Amino acid sequence: MSPYKEMDSLDKSTDVVWHQASVLRNEREASNGHNGAVLWFTGLSGSGKSTIANAVDRMLHNLGCTTYVLDGDNVRHGLNADLNFSDVDRVENIRRIGEVSKLFLDAGLIVSTAFISPFIADRAMVREQLPEKQFIEVFVDTPLEVCEQRDPKGLYKKARAGEIKHFTGIDSAYEAPESAEVHINTERHSIEECAKQVVDYLHLSGFLAIKKSL
Amino acid sequence: MSPYKEMDSLDKSTDVVWHQASVLRNEREASNGHNGAVLWFTGLSGSGKSTIANAVDRMLHNLGCTTYVLDGDNVRHGLNADLNFSDVDRVENIRRIGEVSKLFLDAGLIVSTAFISPFIADRAMVREQLPEKQFIEVFVDTPLEVCEQRDPKGLYKKARAGEIKHFTGIDSAYEAPESAEVHINTERHSIEECAKQVVDYLHLSGFLAIKKSL
Repeated sequence: MSPYKEMDSLDKSTDVVWHQASVLRNEREASNGHNGAVLWFTGLSGSGKSTIANAVDRMLHNLGCTTYVLDGDNVRHGLNADLNFSDVDRVENIRRIGEVSKLFLDAGLIVSTAFISPFIADRAMVREQLPEKQFIEVFVDTPLEVCEQRDPKGLYKKARAGEIKHFTGIDSAYEAPESAEVHINTERHSIEECAKQVVDYLHLSGFLAIKKSL
Repeated sequence: MSPYKEMDSLDKSTDVVWHQASVLRNEREASNGHNGAVLWFTGLSGSGKSTIANAVDRMLHNLGCTTYVLDGDNVRHGLNADLNFSDVDRVENIRRIGEVSKLFLDAGLIVSTAFISPFIADRAMVREQLPEKQFIEVFVDTPLEVCEQRDPKGLYKKARAGEIKHFTGIDSAYEAPESAEVHINTERHSIEECAKQVVDYLHLSGFLAIKKSL
């Protein structure tokens, strides 16, 4: 029987037809061979969020997973190019990233996001937006002193000189997660070890179980 | 040699490391077995955009492609929930959908979008945002009379009664594409035939060529 049988006439409500014809998330996941998830990396500037998120993404890609990374490079200058660093826009920035993550999740991907996202309330908002247990908070717990010493983009130097205002860790708070699903220590472990810690979490939590049997 | 060799020390600029470690779009496409693309469906309310977009998505999914559909159901109430139907917000609505399509494209997916998107300028803006030849405009060319007769959501009735203002086709213009990549006639063809027309376009344009040789 044709899978399009129910759509043979446009005289029916397209509303009803839409739902019947849509590929469901679990079909996408079955095709991908794993469950979707949002890996939400949070930590200070220079903590290693992007580096580890991309290392995780590489490991998952090499395992055959369908993945993506959202970070400043592809979000700040595109979708969120209209936002500045005011309080209102900062919340909107995180809200949109959460909503886009939700779309990638619905598409069955494992999406990693790498944004400072310093406030507990903002991260809680995203967690609320997503289905339960599919928001995985990854706290890249690198102390301020270490981040400031690394200062890969020279931003701490500028913040200390007063050239950048409201810089997280200097004159704006970073509210550390109290119970992140994954807690990463970049001083004690190599990037590969840190990334493996995240991938192991996905493994142990059943996200990478192959479900080709659909 | 470990693929993480270049990332063994966080002392290096994470900026540089990020780029070295990132999974490239062509690697994602090779893994998916096809190229990414944006199928931008445009047409009147009730023209069959969503129905055909989802039928295309189903066909591509069944072919093993990695796909997704963006439409009112998953965008209007999420990412764009803060937008109304003012001129400014209407442009912002399309801009964001374009930017999100770009992210899905970068992730190597074939993403279909199903929004009325009535203005040539707005669609041109999205085309400009995307890499050349990867924005595929699909004009679902159903005449107003037919859409209004179908009226699956009762919106034309409300618009005629003055209960909905600025309704496309009634008191707001629909600017038909002048040279859409795919031109669909839903009166002459079944939904399956319309969907196949789009999939055939992707085939003939080389988007579905398997590139597993990477």
